[in-house]
This record gives sequence, structure tokens and C-alpha cells, in this order.
Amino acid sequence: MKAAVFVEPGVMEVHDVPEPAIEKPTDAIVRVLDACVCGSDLWWFRGISQRQHGSLAGHEAIGIVEKVGADVREIKPGDFVIVPFTHGCGHCAACKAGFDADCPNVEPGGNAGYQAEVMRAINADGALIRIPGTPDDYSADMRASLLALSDVMATGYHAAVSAEVKPGDTAVVFGDGAVGLCGVLGARMLGAERIIAMSRHADRQAVAREFGATDVVPERGDEAVERVMELTGGDGADAVLECVGSEQSTLTALAVARAGATIGRVGVPHIDAAKLDVNSLFWRNVGLKGGPASVITYDRNVLLDAVLDGRIEPGKVFTAAFDLDHVQDAYQAMDERRAIKSLIHIG
Amino acid sequence: MKAAVFVEPGVMEVHDVPEPAIEKPTDAIVRVLDACVCGSDLWWFRGISQRQHGSLAGHEAIGIVEKVGADVREIKPGDFVIVPFTHGCGHCAACKAGFDADCPNVEPGGNAGYQAEVMRAINADGALIRIPGTPDDYSADMRASLLALSDVMATGYHAAVSAEVKPGDTAVVFGDGAVGLCGVLGARMLGAERIIAMSRHADRQAVAREFGATDVVPERGDEAVERVMELTGGDGADAVLECVGSEQSTLTALAVARAGATIGRVGVPHIDAAKLDVNSLFWRNVGLKGGPASVITYDRNVLLDAVLDGRIEPGKVFTAAFDLDHVQDAYQAMDERRAIKSLIHIG
Repeated sequence: MKAAVFVEPGVMEVHDVPEPAIEKPTDAIVRVLDACVCGSDLWWFRGISQRQHGSLAGHEAIGIVEKVGADVREIKPGDFVIVPFTHGCGHCAACKAGFDADCPNVEPGGNAGYQAEVMRAINADGALIRIPGTPDDYSADMRASLLALSDVMATGYHAAVSAEVKPGDTAVVFGDGAVGLCGVLGARMLGAERIIAMSRHADRQAVAREFGATDVVPERGDEAVERVMELTGGDGADAVLECVGSEQSTLTALAVARAGATIGRVGVPHIDAAKLDVNSLFWRNVGLKGGPASVITYDRNVLLDAVLDGRIEPGKVFTAAFDLDHVQDAYQAMDERRAIKSLIHIG
Repeated sequence: MKAAVFVEPGVMEVHDVPEPAIEKPTDAIVRVLDACVCGSDLWWFRGISQRQHGSLAGHEAIGIVEKVGADVREIKPGDFVIVPFTHGCGHCAACKAGFDADCPNVEPGGNAGYQAEVMRAINADGALIRIPGTPDDYSADMRASLLALSDVMATGYHAAVSAEVKPGDTAVVFGDGAVGLCGVLGARMLGAERIIAMSRHADRQAVAREFGATDVVPERGDEAVERVMELTGGDGADAVLECVGSEQSTLTALAVARAGATIGRVGVPHIDAAKLDVNSLFWRNVGLKGGPASVITYDRNVLLDAVLDGRIEPGKVFTAAFDLDHVQDAYQAMDERRAIKSLIHIG
């Protein structure tokens, strides 16, 4: 089968590799219909973080279940499913508490190679999200929104939940990548009245406004702090969504939080923890929460219904589409900011 | 009038000082009935943190309002009141959001000298908590519980609220001082089913159990982590209350949190922020919240009623009582751990 392979920083290729097989009785084999590139993939694509050369890539997909292991009870061959990047077992303390990204019952590396014709999904009953009907029942736009539920929409929503957005709040969202934009959508779902999107790119600003942003701030650093303080009458924001993870973004996020506000962070931290002065947060009663998103939990409890009802259209973050043979282009388009997020049609 | 004065580390004296007067139209003058010594006072009493020599001391009291400024509308002379250590204005963004400890409309140093015959209370309408009736209507035990609402009970409750204790939770409480014990009470009020008190002193363990602790762990550091993990089936605690602030206590608190749990901290941080690895918290989705307590908010919304109804008896943390002339003994008794918390009868 064909699969996307990370050759070296800046280079993705499509190789012919053996099809994965059931290894554990709780596995499923999924034929991938659509996959995509994540903003977090750019860290290793750009060579900033490490990744094993020759490894398969991708952690977001929708597809059709082809085979299931002997212990899989709920998921059946033929099911149309979302394959989240989290793959919690569903019965440990972390999963039961709704933090499926922190399930200890996973394999090192977890699911791998979603950007491939066929993939192995572990903990099938715990982790796969069944979509009603068949792919043919859905428009291309709806399929894109379903694909967004494998990571990016749930991650943006996790930022909003972690930031404890409440009805009537003023929320600030750092990051105008696909996750940040979904954070805007998440803040709106939780009832934020005013949503300030930190964005300096016209295409992303447009999506942010479509998703519910009421204000757009292009400034960064101290100027951004000043601008948000102006917009909030000097009080700071009730809820802060940090969807980048860089040092500048994180420190700016801390600075614009109102006393008693909580920062929900979902951007993979690329800041030295020592630079994050949690003692000053203490005196301001500013909370810090967040981490890898509870994709399974959110999809099952709220997000799948919201997409099926047409309440949210997170698929709008996909502004470019490629086939698997053009996976290099899919990465480059995001790397060069020509695409907000790249969709890869496979099946 | 007589007032307790900090002479130098280890030395408190009673001096004759001028009575305070109304300085702003929002002030009140309160004749103090009872005050007390706070665990946080021990940091400077022991010379670990700095305090101006010759300064008045104390930040917890109940008393009778003697005079009010021209703009005070709600509070009247003759009112029996709790004087919280927080003194928020009641109308800024922080106060409205329920974080009165972070009100910007206060004076440097805020209220000072609660351990005195008479004190000046700023933001009287915003900050003073009226107690129904007169002091004579209450038993000594009840008056002690009312006094505990000026700080320690609200601070313990803030740890529980910040740790997001939910019904059915297993909560762990670090600190067996008066605040930690009130944290146990707070966790119980919020519905924790199992409360693990980290305590190695028999007198404090007894109060912890009386307040609702189901388990007591005397170990510290790695052994404490091991013990809590054993008690929670290897999962860690659903909610963690950090009521000490020392490096050891804080790091142990982080280590026993279940994935997705939140640490509510109210102990004044005496840990280098750089040692607190918030990036590892990110991967475990462990939140960090807390700070100075919302005393006014909690007293008004829940705690005063709970004391008046007899649902909680936080006054049990006072295990020794002194008069103002013996203020040195009151501090020493706590410093030497002969008393959990020292009450000072004044009026």
C-alpha cells in the first residue's frame, strides 16, 4: 500500500510499504478515506523537533473499518469512523475522567501512519467514533468537518474548555492556525460574547470572523498586550486560549489574563518551563490548564452532534486539498502558509 | 490604644499607638473583639521573609463597627462584622468575577493591624461581612468559627474550589496547619468522598478526621507519592489541595495528581518557579490554579451560612487562646507547633 514517509526535514515522500495487520484483539484495521496535515507536524517537518527518519506520518483520519480483532464488540467492519489522534482504552481512570489523551493503555507511538491507504487503530472500541451512514451520505464540506473532529476541532474546543469559557465571557485566542480558529469556534460554543482573535493574516482573520471572532488583533508581544488591555477596559480577558505553544505567544497569553482567569493551553509547549513564572500567576489567581485534547470524549459528547446538526463547520480550516501522491505539497503549503490546513484525499 | 507590633524576627510586643481614624469616605473604624495569628505570619516571624520592623500585624478579625465614612451605605456603626484579610471594592472586574483578593482598588499594604484594639477597614461596604445579631448571641465556639471566616476557612475552601473538587472525588490535602485542615472541610463541602490528609502530627490528624478526612498519610516526599498512589489504585488523586507552599509539598502535590486533575494551591509559594515543570503538567493535562482566597465572595455566598447553620465548625482549628498582652506567646505557640492556630481575645 502507499503511505506518506518522513524522509528528512522538509522532505515527505510516498513509499510502498506492507499493509498493517491486526496485532492485538482490540485492534481494528481502517481503510483511510481522508487524512490531513497537523500544525504540530510542522515542528519536525521544519527540523525544530526530532522525528525518526523513515517513519510513517499523520494522526488524523476518517475511513472505513475493514477488519476488527477478536475482542472488539462495538465497532464492526464497514463502519464509517473518525480515527482520533487519541486512542484511549475507555476504561482507565484517565479515560473515565474524560482525559483520553492521557490513557496509559496505549503503545509507545500509539496509532501511526494515518496518512496511508490503510492503518491500524488500537483500542478500537474505546477510541473510534462511528459516523452514521456511509461516506456517500455526506457532502465534501461535511466530510471535511468530520475529518476535523479527529484532532483540530477537538483541540480548539479543549483550549476553550480548559480556559473555562463561560457564557458572556470575553475570550482571547492566541494562534490563527487551524487549532486557534477552532478555538474561536469552541469559545463561541461555550457562550463567549466577545472573542478576540490574535491574527495577522487576512485569510485566517476571515475564517476567524466567520467562526465568531468579534475583534481581530494583529499585534504581537507588548503591543498585543496593550491592545487587548485597551479592548477589555484595562481588565484583561476572562478566558485565554493559547493555541501556539511558542515562548512569545505563551508569555503574551499570561499577560492578558484578568485576575482569576484561566489560560487553556493546547499548543505543544516550545517554551522553557523556567520562563513561565507560575508564582506571579499565583498572586493574580490566574490558572493554567490544558494539554493534549480529549478528542474521543468531546466527539462523543458534543462535537459530532454539532457537526451533524450543522451548528459548526470546522472543515472550513481546510483551504487546500491534495492526493496522497502530493503529500510533499500538502506539507509545503502549510509550511509556507499558503494553506491554513491541508487535506489529503486518499480513499 | 494597644496594638501588636513586630519588633524583629521572633519578637512581638504590645505597644501603645494612636488610634486609627477615617481617612477615606469608604473607610470604617472597627473595634476588634477577636483576632488571630496566621500560618503565613510565621514566615516573617521566623525571619524567612522580610517585614518592616515596627509594623503592626494581623489580618484576621471580628469586631464591632464604630464609625463609617461619608460614602459608606450598607455598613452601620454597631454592626457586628467579620473583617476579611481581603478588602475588595466590590465593583471592579476582579471583585465582580469573585476574586476579591486581586482587587486593584486597595492601598499598598491594605488593611493592617488587625491585632489591635481598633483598626481601620478600607472599602467597608465592599469588604466587611455583617454577622446577624450581636456578639452576645454567640457561644465562644461559634465566635471562633466566625473569626475563622476572616481568612483560614475561606483559604482552605479556595484550595478546594481551585482544585475543582467534585462530588465523589478522591481529594488529597497537603498541609495540616489550620488552612490545610479547613481544606479538608472545604473538600467535604464540595462532595469529596475520600479525603486523604497528609499529616504527621497526632493533634492535627485528629482534627483532620473530625473535619472529614478518611485517610491520613504521615509520609513525605517520594514515600508520600508512593502511599497516595497505593491508596488510589495507581491512578493518583482527582483533586489536589496544596496548602503549604514549600518546595517539597508543591512538588509532591504535582506528583500525586491524576491525569486531568487540578492542583489548587493556596500556600504562599516558597518554591523557585523554575523548579515547577509546567510542561510536564501539560502532557498530563494537570491544571494549576489558586492564589489568595476570595474571602468576601465565599463568606457571602456560602461560608457564613454554613457556620451559622452549624454545618461546619472551622473554629476548631483554634487550639489555644491568649489576650493581646500575651501576643508573643500566641506567635510562639504556633511557631513551636504547640497550637494549630492561636486566637487572640482583644475586646
